[in-house]
Amino acid sequence: MNREDLMAAVKEQMPERRWQHTLGVMATSVMLAERFGGDAVKADMAAILHDYCKYWPIHEQAKIIRENDLPQDLLAFDKELWHSHAGAFIAKSQFGIDDEEILDAIRYHTSGREGMTLLDKIVCLADYMEPGRDFPGVEHIRELAKTSLERALVAGFDSTINFLISKGKRIYPLTIGTRNDLLEQIQQTT
Amino acid sequence: MNREDLMAAVKEQMPERRWQHTLGVMATSVMLAERFGGDAVKADMAAILHDYCKYWPIHEQAKIIRENDLPQDLLAFDKELWHSHAGAFIAKSQFGIDDEEILDAIRYHTSGREGMTLLDKIVCLADYMEPGRDFPGVEHIRELAKTSLERALVAGFDSTINFLISKGKRIYPLTIGTRNDLLEQIQQTT
Repeated sequence: MNREDLMAAVKEQMPERRWQHTLGVMATSVMLAERFGGDAVKADMAAILHDYCKYWPIHEQAKIIRENDLPQDLLAFDKELWHSHAGAFIAKSQFGIDDEEILDAIRYHTSGREGMTLLDKIVCLADYMEPGRDFPGVEHIRELAKTSLERALVAGFDSTINFLISKGKRIYPLTIGTRNDLLEQIQQTT
Repeated sequence: MNREDLMAAVKEQMPERRWQHTLGVMATSVMLAERFGGDAVKADMAAILHDYCKYWPIHEQAKIIRENDLPQDLLAFDKELWHSHAGAFIAKSQFGIDDEEILDAIRYHTSGREGMTLLDKIVCLADYMEPGRDFPGVEHIRELAKTSLERALVAGFDSTINFLISKGKRIYPLTIGTRNDLLEQIQQTT
């Protein structure tokens, strides 16, 4: 399937405003790839597909995780985490994407992970800061992203953790591991 | 060593204002034990000793952790976590405390742990809310503590996590596991 057909297939899976978000993540991923020396073609592809399952019924997302040996601990945490892993599974099984870098960038775009690749960082950060995003602190993230993927991502995860705390929700441990790892990376380069 | 001698030994290890804090934690632990059906004598003993090593040189605290098979991952995280484990070690080795409930309450009074005992919860919460404490949100913690150890502790850990985020510091994973576990306990009782 070529890029145009893939975009049309993705557009069908979500409401218009989420499609606009996807377009924003695509543009921002490519911009960040150019800024930080990443692969713009892979960044674009991961961005196109990153929210493919976002609006699927939640039980279908859970079913994909349960039946395909994806991390089962996800099911005990926020449903927002599920579409990333389900999306990576569908990208491979339905669209034949077999580039593990692209699949990982889809898979970890919400939680992050320890040892994030450059592509993981680009797509995850683009998801936080694309032009359509408007939440407390997003301008600070955009400002940090001018010079540091890692600092901007820490600010992004900080906003997620603050949000979960304000809602009395549990925090996915990997999100903390990711943030700790990014802080170590920052410390090692300063 | 009787209680009075133990108190005198603890007082010598810290500046006067920290001793006043210890007295506050003792009184609050006993109050919480009476409120929630805990063992007031054990709560008092754990509270007396909980900050024994708090003002020891940091390399001595690290040495105790390194040389006595205490959790080594502590050394990669905030130094504030170290005195609790060092303190439990000293309580046993120097003062002959061999009640594991008391030792655990000292050991986990900063990080908490998954599956906190009633005594763990009492001493950890008393440390957050004793009358001398004055930080944003402490009144909310005291209010919640009138009816729920778990809700008050979640608010306490929330304040710790917010503080670490505001300082750009890493978060000890067990603190997140503790908070997640407490939220599950709350959910199961409502």
